[in-house]
Amino acid sequence: MIDFVLLIVIAICVIALGLAAILTRNLLSQDEGTPKMREVADAIRVGAEAFIKRQYSTIAVLAIVSAVVIFAIYYLTGQQAIALATAAAFIVGAACSAVAGVVAMWIAVRTNIRTASAAQTSDGKALDFSFRGGAISGLIITSMSLLGVSLTYIALGADPTHTPFVIIGFAFGASFVALFAQLGGGIYTKAADVGADIVGKVEAGIPEDDVRNPATIADLVGDNVGDCAGRGADLFESTAAENIGAMILGVALFPIFGVNGILFPIVMCSLGLLASMIGILSVKGVDGADPMDAMNRGYYITALISAVFLAGGVYYLLGATPGWMYFVLAGFVGIALSVAFLRVTLYYTDHHYRPVQDIADASETGAGTNIIMGFSVGLETTAVPAILIGISLLLSYWCGTMTGIPQGGLYGTAVATIGMLMVCAYVLTMDTFGPIADNAGGIVEMSQAPDEVRHRMDKLDAAGNTTKALTKGYAIGSASLAVFLLFNAYMADIAKLTGKAFDVVNLANVNVFVGALIGAMLVFLFASLAIRAVSKTAQYVIEEVRIQFKDPAIMAGTKKPDYARVIDITTQGALKNMVLPGALVILFPIIIGVTMKHEALAGFLMVATITGILLALILNNSGGAWDNAKKYIETGVHGGKKSEAHKAAVIGDTVGDPFKDTAGPSLHVLIKLLATLTLVLAPLFI
Amino acid sequence: MIDFVLLIVIAICVIALGLAAILTRNLLSQDEGTPKMREVADAIRVGAEAFIKRQYSTIAVLAIVSAVVIFAIYYLTGQQAIALATAAAFIVGAACSAVAGVVAMWIAVRTNIRTASAAQTSDGKALDFSFRGGAISGLIITSMSLLGVSLTYIALGADPTHTPFVIIGFAFGASFVALFAQLGGGIYTKAADVGADIVGKVEAGIPEDDVRNPATIADLVGDNVGDCAGRGADLFESTAAENIGAMILGVALFPIFGVNGILFPIVMCSLGLLASMIGILSVKGVDGADPMDAMNRGYYITALISAVFLAGGVYYLLGATPGWMYFVLAGFVGIALSVAFLRVTLYYTDHHYRPVQDIADASETGAGTNIIMGFSVGLETTAVPAILIGISLLLSYWCGTMTGIPQGGLYGTAVATIGMLMVCAYVLTMDTFGPIADNAGGIVEMSQAPDEVRHRMDKLDAAGNTTKALTKGYAIGSASLAVFLLFNAYMADIAKLTGKAFDVVNLANVNVFVGALIGAMLVFLFASLAIRAVSKTAQYVIEEVRIQFKDPAIMAGTKKPDYARVIDITTQGALKNMVLPGALVILFPIIIGVTMKHEALAGFLMVATITGILLALILNNSGGAWDNAKKYIETGVHGGKKSEAHKAAVIGDTVGDPFKDTAGPSLHVLIKLLATLTLVLAPLFI
Repeated sequence: MIDFVLLIVIAICVIALGLAAILTRNLLSQDEGTPKMREVADAIRVGAEAFIKRQYSTIAVLAIVSAVVIFAIYYLTGQQAIALATAAAFIVGAACSAVAGVVAMWIAVRTNIRTASAAQTSDGKALDFSFRGGAISGLIITSMSLLGVSLTYIALGADPTHTPFVIIGFAFGASFVALFAQLGGGIYTKAADVGADIVGKVEAGIPEDDVRNPATIADLVGDNVGDCAGRGADLFESTAAENIGAMILGVALFPIFGVNGILFPIVMCSLGLLASMIGILSVKGVDGADPMDAMNRGYYITALISAVFLAGGVYYLLGATPGWMYFVLAGFVGIALSVAFLRVTLYYTDHHYRPVQDIADASETGAGTNIIMGFSVGLETTAVPAILIGISLLLSYWCGTMTGIPQGGLYGTAVATIGMLMVCAYVLTMDTFGPIADNAGGIVEMSQAPDEVRHRMDKLDAAGNTTKALTKGYAIGSASLAVFLLFNAYMADIAKLTGKAFDVVNLANVNVFVGALIGAMLVFLFASLAIRAVSKTAQYVIEEVRIQFKDPAIMAGTKKPDYARVIDITTQGALKNMVLPGALVILFPIIIGVTMKHEALAGFLMVATITGILLALILNNSGGAWDNAKKYIETGVHGGKKSEAHKAAVIGDTVGDPFKDTAGPSLHVLIKLLATLTLVLAPLFI
Repeated sequence: MIDFVLLIVIAICVIALGLAAILTRNLLSQDEGTPKMREVADAIRVGAEAFIKRQYSTIAVLAIVSAVVIFAIYYLTGQQAIALATAAAFIVGAACSAVAGVVAMWIAVRTNIRTASAAQTSDGKALDFSFRGGAISGLIITSMSLLGVSLTYIALGADPTHTPFVIIGFAFGASFVALFAQLGGGIYTKAADVGADIVGKVEAGIPEDDVRNPATIADLVGDNVGDCAGRGADLFESTAAENIGAMILGVALFPIFGVNGILFPIVMCSLGLLASMIGILSVKGVDGADPMDAMNRGYYITALISAVFLAGGVYYLLGATPGWMYFVLAGFVGIALSVAFLRVTLYYTDHHYRPVQDIADASETGAGTNIIMGFSVGLETTAVPAILIGISLLLSYWCGTMTGIPQGGLYGTAVATIGMLMVCAYVLTMDTFGPIADNAGGIVEMSQAPDEVRHRMDKLDAAGNTTKALTKGYAIGSASLAVFLLFNAYMADIAKLTGKAFDVVNLANVNVFVGALIGAMLVFLFASLAIRAVSKTAQYVIEEVRIQFKDPAIMAGTKKPDYARVIDITTQGALKNMVLPGALVILFPIIIGVTMKHEALAGFLMVATITGILLALILNNSGGAWDNAKKYIETGVHGGKKSEAHKAAVIGDTVGDPFKDTAGPSLHVLIKLLATLTLVLAPLFI
């Protein structure tokens, strides 16, 4: 018999999918712009689809091999009963994650052209289109994650205290695909971008998105495969992993709350999805207004309604304890943290505030000082977020303790995480809006549309940059709350497997300390390889563009450059170079776990996570700050475009590209992947 | 009654001081070169002495305030008996550390001119002079550290199981001064360097060390106050802190080895000092040969003799247990690690190997790709060292366990640390050699000596760059072994204060996890502020140099620029900007410890240490690699000097400057400071 609350979840998901369908129909019926625009958009769509096809073929092979290995591990370590179920859950999770990426991209490559077309007449309409395009992804991905977890739960579940430990296969599958999707897409997008900029802007001195540059289409393809598909898979696995982690903690509370405690996370997330729908529908573009105003208002509406739903949901599901109000408080902590993270990210990456202005100032004395200042700002951005995360963890733990139930503290942190996750669909909408606007801007530029159209798109594009930075802040913030939950899920899993309590990870033990040291190192090594991969792939792009630029007909604009060749080269390079960092992240924890066992692995996991969170903040925020310092100078300060300061700022932006769009976002996934991997492979480590 | 083995320590120190005196007398009797050289050297000496005087006045005030605070804390927390002794030990440690810095600088500013003079005729002689100048510092600093610990031990010590807990005040004092010395000196040296380069090389297009550049003398002063004085204080506090940490562990073994186990560390270090003297005397410059050959040979001799002494020392002092051979093995692990770290650092920072060549290649496509590649190399350099540290810790712990004595494992890691420390005096010699050679090169350049003299000095200067990178690798390697020891000393101290066992630091506890997160963050924040301080101070320098360059007489070379003014501005800026990062490092652990208590603070300490080690590796090695990539291009590859690739590489070098000479080396000290601070202030955290 299916639990009543699961029916609520499924119903909300169906509503969300229905809304997505309506939005899609409306959007597809819109005008597709001038023939020139269509030509550019078609090239982007074809390139993106070709990349995704090849990328997912590669990932599929890796996933199938992994599924077999998982089955074998479970089978050989005496877990025959759940071997097949875990491997199957892995495959389902992987498939859903892949679909999430494909959906995000499918929508994006169809919305970009319609946004560009709308910009011919109205910037309000252009915002509406691009934002709704983002909303379609946000709604589909979030409901797919919830449906995936719910249906797997129903399919597996006779014993509700047992099932969550099997569904972790789903989360691992999702993280597995997300890692490669984000990594491959991130390498692609930045290799094309860096390659296009270095030969185009720096060497040949032609503007960004110039039709003569053979790497421009690859650059625009990159926005779709990196930002849309990659981030789609990223946030899909976040909701999956965090929900399942919270469900495992719910098992410990089964005697008190029954199945309600286990299903609490997915029910709350579905209510959050409902809140997000209201928030999304409240956003309405107004000609001449700052697009950020409308989107911010929508965000606050979503957060507020989520808070109300949270209180109601806690009362309904966890009202069995007199201290339930404290769980509501814990949830508010999570929602507040999500708002705080957005504010902090804004402060560090928006040119209205000191950090970006400092970087712009430093550009006056050249690229050297620009980079030094940007890196210093990046390091600084760890401070407030780390303190916020610390306070949120302590507060929500304290709230949980005050409920008076055993293990309440941990469950308090789980409720906070869920509170933060409730706004996920809205955040995903803002996130996908960014690359769509970026792409539409590129199409407008490449189709040589009139200046006023370009100006309209520039404003939207700038807002897109801001939302991209903000949602990265949100992603890392929610990850950092979730990991504490996932650690405890891992420890509960180990305890279940060994039949002995496992609640101490003693850092003073030499094994654990060495595990922790290696864990922290892995994060840096991974970032190194991800950044290097961009560098290597960009090198291929640069060489190809230089060869094409030698043809005077291309430079004169009388001959079309060979866009497809650059796309092909970038695709091959990205796929080749994503394997090493990806493999490393999977092999390292297995080696540590097998040789040094579960406690050392816990140390590895926890310190890798801490380092990963902080390094992701550094990379995302410094990259965002460099980008906006360049844009700030382009508004006319420090000599404006073509000044020496601008040249320096362009170099800073180039450095920041692989930081903020390849290594940084991949670290979000890495953190969750480590957690789900250790959970699923736990039988190996005892 | 003074223990017999202490007499050995004192005797060896006296011999070392005697050798230092002889070397000093020989050196001072050498020729001081041309009047032009003397003029430059005098300006450097005066500037350096002025800075040190002002810097140490500031530090003295801070130290006295801290001593009073320490006294108050001990007095008010019921530790009246040792309040005065601990505060006094702090003052003595601080004073010794200050003297170490002053000595290193005093020698350096007198050796640089004599080396420059020797280079007029012979490069072998120039090597001899600069290396012996370094040796004087190395011998004096090491013996002062050993004498300081020994004499404080004698002065305090009725009860040998009690005294080590009081001498920690000495180590804290040493770290305290070292932090500010390294930080202030590091800011000074790089602000002057960056400022001189940006206005001189980049804007005005004049060569490095050109007499017309008003910041050149400040730049040369910087080598003395940053590299000599700073690193002198750094390695002084290393030997002090690590010896004392090992002595505290020795207390636990008192029932087995008696006072021998406690005094073992300082006896072994004094034997290492003896080995270093032999190694130092074996170095002989040969005209036309690679200076690195002679220095490397000396290093291997020192390491080999240390290994023999180690075996003898263990047998003599710890022979009471039948498993003593395993302690010898543990010591060998430490010596092997010191050699391995030098090799790894060489690989990552020498242009004969892939990493530096990759950076040079990447310079072809501009500063952006140069920076991306350099940063990626920096991140990569954490991998092998972390694995080496991990293996060494596990191996030496295992060796210790095999001796069969209780707590043997921990003592095994202590013996490994001591093994690594034995070569300290030799390493310090190589380290101080670097800035002396650098300075002599500057003097030769500024005194417009003939080309052949410049070529001789260039070779020595390049070797100096290599030794500076190598010794930074050694410093961080020895710190990483030592910290595990210092954690356990902290835990022993807490256990002693509370009377309860304290051997678990549970990272799964939410308080400990938050402590750990904040600890890791502090490291990044500190690095941010240190790098920013350089940027800010460099800004003052840049403005001043630009003003002076507006005077056509200065640019024509007919009027002497106002060197003193730049020195003054840099001094003020460095002292002002060192306070915030320094204060932060002291206040943060106190706040965490007081509010969240000793276990959370242990988590803070351990994860801050892990992050600190890895970040120091990243900063030191990327900086070194960028520097050498530039030098590699200057040998003529990728178009040589004045090519676009060279311009890009110069920007990379500028970025690397504050990494490798300010933030990186300050992190070495920070790691030890955190450990000694928590040890000394332990009564506050229970």
